[in-house]
Amino acid sequence: MTPPIRVIPNAAQRATSLLRTIQYTHPPSCPCHSNPGYHQSPPTGIIPRLQGAGQRRFATPGSNADLQEYAFEMAASAIRFGPGVTKEVGMDFKNMGAKRVCVVTDSTVDKLDAMRQVREGLTREGINFDVYSEVRVEPKDTSIKAAIDWARPYKPDAFLAVGGGSVIDTAKLMNLYTAYPDADFLDFVNAPLGKGLPVDKPLKPLIAVPTTAGTGSETTGTAIFDLVSKRAKTGVAHRNLKPTLGICDPINTRTMPAAVKASSGLDVLCHSLESWTAIPYHQRTPRPSNPILRPAYQGANPISDIFSFHALRSTVKYLPRSVRDPDDFEAQSEMLLAATLAGVGFGNAGVHLCHGMSYPISGQNPGYQHAGYDVPSPLIPHGVSVAVSAPAVFRFTAHSNPERHLAAAEAFGVDISNVKKESAGEVLAEALIKFLADLGDQPKGLKDLGFTNDHIEDLVEGTIPQARVLMLAPGLSKELEHEKDQLRRLFEDAMTH
Amino acid sequence: MTPPIRVIPNAAQRATSLLRTIQYTHPPSCPCHSNPGYHQSPPTGIIPRLQGAGQRRFATPGSNADLQEYAFEMAASAIRFGPGVTKEVGMDFKNMGAKRVCVVTDSTVDKLDAMRQVREGLTREGINFDVYSEVRVEPKDTSIKAAIDWARPYKPDAFLAVGGGSVIDTAKLMNLYTAYPDADFLDFVNAPLGKGLPVDKPLKPLIAVPTTAGTGSETTGTAIFDLVSKRAKTGVAHRNLKPTLGICDPINTRTMPAAVKASSGLDVLCHSLESWTAIPYHQRTPRPSNPILRPAYQGANPISDIFSFHALRSTVKYLPRSVRDPDDFEAQSEMLLAATLAGVGFGNAGVHLCHGMSYPISGQNPGYQHAGYDVPSPLIPHGVSVAVSAPAVFRFTAHSNPERHLAAAEAFGVDISNVKKESAGEVLAEALIKFLADLGDQPKGLKDLGFTNDHIEDLVEGTIPQARVLMLAPGLSKELEHEKDQLRRLFEDAMTH
Repeated sequence: MTPPIRVIPNAAQRATSLLRTIQYTHPPSCPCHSNPGYHQSPPTGIIPRLQGAGQRRFATPGSNADLQEYAFEMAASAIRFGPGVTKEVGMDFKNMGAKRVCVVTDSTVDKLDAMRQVREGLTREGINFDVYSEVRVEPKDTSIKAAIDWARPYKPDAFLAVGGGSVIDTAKLMNLYTAYPDADFLDFVNAPLGKGLPVDKPLKPLIAVPTTAGTGSETTGTAIFDLVSKRAKTGVAHRNLKPTLGICDPINTRTMPAAVKASSGLDVLCHSLESWTAIPYHQRTPRPSNPILRPAYQGANPISDIFSFHALRSTVKYLPRSVRDPDDFEAQSEMLLAATLAGVGFGNAGVHLCHGMSYPISGQNPGYQHAGYDVPSPLIPHGVSVAVSAPAVFRFTAHSNPERHLAAAEAFGVDISNVKKESAGEVLAEALIKFLADLGDQPKGLKDLGFTNDHIEDLVEGTIPQARVLMLAPGLSKELEHEKDQLRRLFEDAMTH
Repeated sequence: MTPPIRVIPNAAQRATSLLRTIQYTHPPSCPCHSNPGYHQSPPTGIIPRLQGAGQRRFATPGSNADLQEYAFEMAASAIRFGPGVTKEVGMDFKNMGAKRVCVVTDSTVDKLDAMRQVREGLTREGINFDVYSEVRVEPKDTSIKAAIDWARPYKPDAFLAVGGGSVIDTAKLMNLYTAYPDADFLDFVNAPLGKGLPVDKPLKPLIAVPTTAGTGSETTGTAIFDLVSKRAKTGVAHRNLKPTLGICDPINTRTMPAAVKASSGLDVLCHSLESWTAIPYHQRTPRPSNPILRPAYQGANPISDIFSFHALRSTVKYLPRSVRDPDDFEAQSEMLLAATLAGVGFGNAGVHLCHGMSYPISGQNPGYQHAGYDVPSPLIPHGVSVAVSAPAVFRFTAHSNPERHLAAAEAFGVDISNVKKESAGEVLAEALIKFLADLGDQPKGLKDLGFTNDHIEDLVEGTIPQARVLMLAPGLSKELEHEKDQLRRLFEDAMTH
C-alpha cells in the first residue's frame, strides 16, 4: 500500500505519468485539453446532465495514482433559514455556553432592524457582548488589522457577524488572528502573496447573519480583502474559517436598495457559473499529501454541481423579479437561498476567471461610480466587476466543456436543441449579455467603466497573482507568457459586450 | 417584538390561530388538509418543480406566528469522497490532535480491507487506538450498553466507526453516553419511549467510514436500535450526534454481496421518497421555543428537497446496475454518493410511514429469512422491511400532494404527461412494484414475509410509538383511533403488492 504522501514530481515522473494518462484513459484523452472526460454529450434533462451520462464524475481507482487528485470534500456551515429567525441568535449563543460575544457589523447595518433584533436577542438571554461597527466595505488589510486589534483585548468566546460579505469576512479574520496571536498577518494569506498555511485548529464559534443575498460568505471558509502593499485582492481560505451557523433571515435582505440587490445577485450568478464550469476536481494537481492541504477551491465535483446548477437556475428566475419589485418577498427569499446554495457550491469547488479578473478591475477603477451606490468615492461593486467580464470568460472557457456551457445557456431559457457544441460559448455569452441588459444599469463592458486598451497590461498583471482561482480556469495555460496572452485577449474581449 | 418563546397554546389560542390560518392564507387553505399549499401544479422540468412554482416553499412572515414552524435548518457532516480515501484517516486524527481513538466495527468488517487500511493508517501516524468489534447487526439497547461500557473506561478522545449503519449508530451512542457518564440511557431516547432530551454540548470527534451504501448514517445525527423492554425500534436523534466527517470510499462498498447491495439501496430509495413527500416544515407544529429543540426530522424543505430528489433519481438509475454487476464500479460509486445525499436529505427532513411501519415489521418477523443473507436466525433486512410497504404508503400519501408523487413517478421513468392528479398514488405504486420486481428476490408484500391479517393489530400497535416519524406523514390523522384505523388499512394494503 503506497501512502498518498508525495512531493512535487520531477520531470521524468511527470513524463511517465503523462504517458500513462494517454495510454490508459478510455476514450483516449489528449493531455493538451484542460478538461478531458468532459466531452461527451449528456442526454437532455437536468438530472441526467448533473449525473454525467458518460462524463467522468469520479476518479478511477489507481489511475494517475501519484499525480492527480482522487477525492473531493464537501463542508458547509449549518444553515438556518426563515423570516424572523434572527431573533433566535441569543438562544444559540446561550446554548453553546458563550458568555462574551464580539458582534461585528458596519455603520450602515448597525442602524438596521437586523442589529436591533440581535441586540434584543442577546440582551434577552443575558449574553455579554460588544459591537465593532467599523468594518469597511471592500475591506483592506489595514481595516482588517484594526478590527483584529480591537478584538484581541476583548477576548471574546464567540463571534457574531451581521452584514454583507465584507462584515462576515472581517469577522472570520478577527476570529482567526485572535486564535493565533503570534501569527504574522501573511502566514495564512493565500499563496503566492502570503504563505498559505493551513488553519490547523478549530476557531471560536462564529454565527453569520447575512444582510445581502450575494457572497454566500455565511457558508464558506473564504475571507477576501485588498492587500494594499501588493495592490492586489487576496484572502484567506480554509474550511476551519467557515461559520458555525449561517442565519439566513429574508427579512434582513429587504433593506437592500435595488442596485445592491442587482450587484449582489450578479455575484451569485458568477459563483454558480464559475463553480459549475471550473475544472473537475480529479484534474487538479498535485494531489495533496495530507487531507488538511486539500483546498476548499478544489474544482467542480458531483456535490458542488448540484448546488451550483440549482443556484444558477434560481438566480436566472428570481434575480430580475427581486431587483424590479421591492415587495416581491418570494423572489427575495429565493435569492437569499440561492446565494447560500451558490456559497456551498463555490465554497467546495471554487471560482475562476470572472473572479480572478474582477480583483484588478475593481482595484484599478479609473473613476467609475456605480449608479445607486451612495458612497463618497468611486466604486465598482464586486458583483458588477465580476459580471462585466462574464460574456468574454465563458466564450473562452466553453471549448473545454461545451456541454456544461450549453446546460448553463439552457438555464437562461435558451433552446439549445439545435445548437452545435462549437457555438456553446457564443450562445452562453449572448444569454448573459441579454440577462445583464434586461437587469438594467449594468456596464456593457470594461469601456463603460472607463477602462481603455492602455489599462490592459496592468489588469493582466493584477490578475496573475490570483493563482488559487486561475488554476481552476478550464483552458487557461499553465505557462506564464501564454497565460498572460490569454488574459490580454480576455480583457480585450471584455471591453465591450 | 414578541420573542418566539411559547407554551402549548390553550384551546382559545388554538381556535384563534386556526381562524387566522383560514382567514389570511391565500388561496384559502382548509386546515383539515395536512398539507395545504402543496396543491398547485408545477410546470414540467425538475428544477421548476423543485422551486415550487406557486407551491409554498417558505413560511410567510407573521403568519400563524405562534403555532407553526417558520424556519428550517440544514446541517450535515463534512463528506470526503474518493476511491482509496480511507487511508487518509490516520492523518485526519493526527490533524485534530487525537491521541487515543476508539475504533468501532463488527466482526465481519473487522476482516475486510477497509479495516486493514484503517489499522495501517492509524499506525503510520502513531495514533493509539483500540478496536471494539462486537457491534451487533440491528443493534439492541443491550448491545449498545455493552459497547458503551467498553468505551467508558477506555477514555478515547475521538471515535472512528467503520461499517454499516449498525456500526455507525452504535459509535454515535458510545460517543454520546461517554460524554454524559451520569445520564440514564432513556434520557436522550426519542419520546415517547424515552425523554428525548436535547444533546446540549458538543461530543468528541467521530469519523464514519461507511462500508454499505444505505443508511447515510455518516451524515446524520440519528442512531437507531431495538429497545427490547418496549419491543420497539427507536433511537436518539440530535444534530450534535452527527459525525465530524464521513469518509466515503467506494472501494469499501465493493465487498457487499448483491443481496446487501439491494436491501441497502432500497433503504436509500425510501429515505429519498419519504423525505421528498414528508409534510413541509412550515406545517409542523408546534414551533420550537428554542432552536436547540428544532428537530432534525423537521419536514420537507427547500434544501432537503434538492438532496432527496437527486438521490431518488440516482437510485432509480444506478441501484439495478449495482446489484446486477459486481464489477460496475461506476454504479457502486453513484450508489454510495446517493446514500450520502439521501442521508443529508432525510437527515434534515425526516422519513415517515415506510420507516415507521418497518420497525414492527422487522421486530415481529414471523420467521422470514431473506435470501442471500448468511445469518443464523431469521432476518428481514432493514431495507426490505422498509420497501415492502412502500407501494401501499405512497398510494395513501399521494392525495395530500399529488404533484410530488407524480414527480417521483417521473423519476422512475413514467410518462406522467397525461396522468391525472387523482391517479398519482396508483401510478407511483405501480412504478415501485415494477422496480422491486425487476430488482429481484424481493417479497411481493407482507404475506411473502409470513404475515397474515392476524398480525395486523400487533403491527399497528408497534407503529404507534414512532411518533417522531408519524408526525411527518402527510394525511395521517392526529387523532389516535383514526390514525390506528389508517395504519390498519395501510398494513392490509401492504399484504400483497
